Amino acid sequence: MRFKFPLVAIGLEIFMIVLFGLFVQYETDQHTQQRNITKPTDLATFLVLYPLFQDVHVMIFVGFGFLMTFLKKYGFSSVGFNLLIAALGLQWGTIAQGILHSHGQKINIGIKNMINADFSTATVLISFGAVLGKTSPIQMLIMTIIEIAFFAGNEYLVGEIFKASDIGASMTIHAFGAYFGLAVAGILYRRGLRRGHENEESVYHSDLFAMIGTLFLWMFWPSFNSAIAEPGDKQYRAIVNTYFSLAACVLTAYAFSSLVEPRGKLDMVHIQNATLAGGVAVGTCADMTIHPFGSMVIGSIAGIVSVFGYKFLTPLVTTKLRIHDTCGVHNLHGLPGVMGGLAGIVAVAMGASNTSTMAMQAAALGSSIGTAVVGGLITGLILKLPFLGQPSDQNCYDDSVYWEVPRLTEHDNHFHRHGDHSQLEPEV
Amino acid sequence: MRFKFPLVAIGLEIFMIVLFGLFVQYETDQHTQQRNITKPTDLATFLVLYPLFQDVHVMIFVGFGFLMTFLKKYGFSSVGFNLLIAALGLQWGTIAQGILHSHGQKINIGIKNMINADFSTATVLISFGAVLGKTSPIQMLIMTIIEIAFFAGNEYLVGEIFKASDIGASMTIHAFGAYFGLAVAGILYRRGLRRGHENEESVYHSDLFAMIGTLFLWMFWPSFNSAIAEPGDKQYRAIVNTYFSLAACVLTAYAFSSLVEPRGKLDMVHIQNATLAGGVAVGTCADMTIHPFGSMVIGSIAGIVSVFGYKFLTPLVTTKLRIHDTCGVHNLHGLPGVMGGLAGIVAVAMGASNTSTMAMQAAALGSSIGTAVVGGLITGLILKLPFLGQPSDQNCYDDSVYWEVPRLTEHDNHFHRHGDHSQLEPEV
Amino acid sequence: MRFKFPLVAIGLEIFMIVLFGLFVQYETDQHTQQRNITKPTDLATFLVLYPLFQDVHVMIFVGFGFLMTFLKKYGFSSVGFNLLIAALGLQWGTIAQGILHSHGQKINIGIKNMINADFSTATVLISFGAVLGKTSPIQMLIMTIIEIAFFAGNEYLVGEIFKASDIGASMTIHAFGAYFGLAVAGILYRRGLRRGHENEESVYHSDLFAMIGTLFLWMFWPSFNSAIAEPGDKQYRAIVNTYFSLAACVLTAYAFSSLVEPRGKLDMVHIQNATLAGGVAVGTCADMTIHPFGSMVIGSIAGIVSVFGYKFLTPLVTTKLRIHDTCGVHNLHGLPGVMGGLAGIVAVAMGASNTSTMAMQAAALGSSIGTAVVGGLITGLILKLPFLGQPSDQNCYDDSVYWEVPRLTEHDNHFHRHGDHSQLEPEV
Repeated sequence: MRFKFPLVAIGLEIFMIVLFGLFVQYETDQHTQQRNITKPTDLATFLVLYPLFQDVHVMIFVGFGFLMTFLKKYGFSSVGFNLLIAALGLQWGTIAQGILHSHGQKINIGIKNMINADFSTATVLISFGAVLGKTSPIQMLIMTIIEIAFFAGNEYLVGEIFKASDIGASMTIHAFGAYFGLAVAGILYRRGLRRGHENEESVYHSDLFAMIGTLFLWMFWPSFNSAIAEPGDKQYRAIVNTYFSLAACVLTAYAFSSLVEPRGKLDMVHIQNATLAGGVAVGTCADMTIHPFGSMVIGSIAGIVSVFGYKFLTPLVTTKLRIHDTCGVHNLHGLPGVMGGLAGIVAVAMGASNTSTMAMQAAALGSSIGTAVVGGLITGLILKLPFLGQPSDQNCYDDSVYWEVPRLTEHDNHFHRHGDHSQLEPEV
Repeated sequence: MRFKFPLVAIGLEIFMIVLFGLFVQYETDQHTQQRNITKPTDLATFLVLYPLFQDVHVMIFVGFGFLMTFLKKYGFSSVGFNLLIAALGLQWGTIAQGILHSHGQKINIGIKNMINADFSTATVLISFGAVLGKTSPIQMLIMTIIEIAFFAGNEYLVGEIFKASDIGASMTIHAFGAYFGLAVAGILYRRGLRRGHENEESVYHSDLFAMIGTLFLWMFWPSFNSAIAEPGDKQYRAIVNTYFSLAACVLTAYAFSSLVEPRGKLDMVHIQNATLAGGVAVGTCADMTIHPFGSMVIGSIAGIVSVFGYKFLTPLVTTKLRIHDTCGVHNLHGLPGVMGGLAGIVAVAMGASNTSTMAMQAAALGSSIGTAVVGGLITGLILKLPFLGQPSDQNCYDDSVYWEVPRLTEHDNHFHRHGDHSQLEPEV
Repeated sequence: MRFKFPLVAIGLEIFMIVLFGLFVQYETDQHTQQRNITKPTDLATFLVLYPLFQDVHVMIFVGFGFLMTFLKKYGFSSVGFNLLIAALGLQWGTIAQGILHSHGQKINIGIKNMINADFSTATVLISFGAVLGKTSPIQMLIMTIIEIAFFAGNEYLVGEIFKASDIGASMTIHAFGAYFGLAVAGILYRRGLRRGHENEESVYHSDLFAMIGTLFLWMFWPSFNSAIAEPGDKQYRAIVNTYFSLAACVLTAYAFSSLVEPRGKLDMVHIQNATLAGGVAVGTCADMTIHPFGSMVIGSIAGIVSVFGYKFLTPLVTTKLRIHDTCGVHNLHGLPGVMGGLAGIVAVAMGASNTSTMAMQAAALGSSIGTAVVGGLITGLILKLPFLGQPSDQNCYDDSVYWEVPRLTEHDNHFHRHGDHSQLEPEV
């Protein structure tokens, strides 16, 4: 670990700079070469979409980052490795997606490239949730490179070959990221932790930090589902449908969280996660004419599915399939993502879209899950290579393996008793 | 509590879906029916106002939610029930306001409906602050339904009948929400807690969480006061006036917080709340030609009024009127809201508006307070019904009544001593 | 302290209101006076730039505010005095910058004035970081007034006289704020704290609060560097270049944070700060044609420089130069700011700008550092005046000197043991 992590990180950054030097140019550069492109329009679009890009940006860095801080001793890694993965991922995603879509031309960086670059990091951050606490930062850097390559390939297949609709990326990001992560987690299964780990729990304030992530994801999800939508009716509908789907999802997530607990109490895991399932599940058909009440039906069901997943399916997956999913990404991204794909098929069947067919939608769903599982299995095997610094079972879910951690927590009321300085000595 | 809460929540969500199916359509749907409406303009407006909508959205969910996390053991409920109330409220607000304004037509969902839907939840969240810690989630769901109905009625009266100006909703949201909440709190008064409750206090980090709420409210308040303003001069002025009013308010809130404390120390309650009073108080006349220095005068006075309210009025209201106002919403929303209404009357008298008269403004203020008090008293009586799960005195201000709460807090430096694992056993 | 702070704050606010009454008017007021100005364009620009303004606003109040909450007992002051300084600073900055640029006319408040007003507070907040924990709020109010006057003067010199390029303000804000703060810190040096202070350290959750600040600064930095750029190509490039510079910077900051630690662990101080250096360093040339890979090279180097600064330079500066820089602003703003100035000279030399020369850029860098040091030394001497309430050495880094602080921290698992209420008594 001593030198491996820095060298891998530096090497990857140099690689990115070289790739950018070779393949990337400003969007405005093309105008000096090709006179026929309407430059002012592109730049006007830039500022119009920029607020939506920034919403997505907040979801990636604060949303995903803080959502994972629920573990009592793994907050530095959650928010810190999230930043690291996303910073690498957005550079690599710019290249990986750009190469496929540029048809041999230079990649012209516009606002949509930046939004798509952020999107491509989301897949890795979802997978990161499945293996949270059980992997090293080097492993995560490598997973970032491999996963985004697979993601870009599948996204090209879905969008350019199958020409399927998936505007909010229920299939290509959420289902893909979840099943990729589950495949990796399956390969990296730790028998030694089958009875759990003492650090795999939250404390009171870590659950509040996680709610920062939940809320920023929840609020800005309409931007996520609409950012690259066709301007006009479709973009408008993507925003409206997501807004109401999420609102409905909150009600059912709360109701079923209480319902499945013996004493009727709410579970923070459900509230932090299942309230977001409505955003995932409405993603594929967000820009279609599904009617606001249709989006609320989708959101309501997603909230229920997600809570049931956390309560009943995750324990089964852990014990029977030997896949340990730290954040329960299967319940937030996997099941609702598949549900989104199926909702898209139904919506197309009901005539809510005039650009896609049921077969194209089904192919997209199958391709996303298939590519994710294959890619995840390959990645898992690579991550098992012994020199990648995977932590021992005992060291899981513990920041102090990779971080200098303050000796004290906010625990000590001596700190607030003035006048009795004899007790101000550190207690270790 | 065991099944009541889930059933009420599910029932309300089904009710909302039915109402949306019956009464709501996409804004773009009308264009296929009525050829004479200029569609592209509406959609262009959508994206122009969308960033302002998102600012308001953040205020509702993060702003109000985290502002109330100051209580040491009630953070889950503060931020969690805030989300629940707002998610229900925005659906119901869409219907309640839409029905009144649509004159028998379908409700066409545009960006202004979404902004107004978020606004309507703000009234309930303000009232929630008055009864924070003393009510059950079922009670809050019921209050949401009743209060938004009263709010929509009063808002229609103020805007359509009196045709008064209240662009930042000092009267229709802030004063309304505060006096509604106080009326409810008066009915629900608990003699058993007249000497306070051991949980009704903050801890160090809960006060920092609350500052997240304060800052997002403070920063985005110019968007709140301008989001539905007339485009052009008025919207511009609403932003500028609110920006400077809030800045001035901070200075006086800090000054008077220090001034009223015997040892001159600052009080976090004042800083978290009174710094926002300038946004409330400038609301009614935010889009009028009150001059930037006029808005600063309003903000300065609001900061002073609010601190005095917390320091001197709240204790009186608690002991003499037997109204216990957990968050002091009277000082943040009530007094500054009334002040905003009065400032509006003065501004109109001084010719700062050419669309309203003093009488119309006074009628709006009277109507808002009157409707709020009547509505609040009725709501309070309904909430007293014994089967609504109101917590016992002992269980007030305690998340563990409604939530699974982590056994440990971030308190234990054993967690950070490695090599002494005998002490890693849970301590209960 | 008892009455001084409130009186100074109230006096300054009255002074601001008078200045606004004398010198400020709405942007729209000029249209009634001068018929030749195209009013609708200005107002259209207002709403287009408003989201970028709000991003900057979040950086100032949440970004800077929470970034400084890393100290275990100084979170109230960090986020609270940040708010106080910025609220005063934006009023005074409006006047100080406006007077210089209005050429004897009234100051017309438009969106650019608001962005610039926020910018002017950034200089003071950077300097505040250098003296964090060692100064009183009165001292900070006075520093705000003096520093913004110097800032406005230097900014006028750089922009209007030298006509240098510094779109992201690497020189005029970051280097200026850092060296101003270091000069103040040098004058206020405390020999009694040369061996450190027991409160000058973080706890686990205070480091997580600080990450809120880091992330909002990191995400919105593209808006900071582009908010007042020339619309079109330049504004576009300022966003794109900053986006990629910051991403590259994260990779090198992580790599070198691990590399310089004996055991290869990551240091939260580096992650919270050095990951932002890329935004500072690319500031001056952000709108130039430096190519995306050029911005990534700048960001990569900035991350390295910043980590080295924290690890090796800060200890030297503290012991040899007797300048104690609490937040290490020299490493986040000083060195990267100078680097940004130098990068600007190189970029101009390489033809990346057609509006500036190397000499103009060098003059701007020299002027910014020179003015900052002179202004900081003068300010430091003024702040040493004995009646300004500077805390004693023992009282440094401690909120309880200026704030009512809750007796308990989130420390006590008794709070979560129900049924054993005998232990619920407060423990003091």
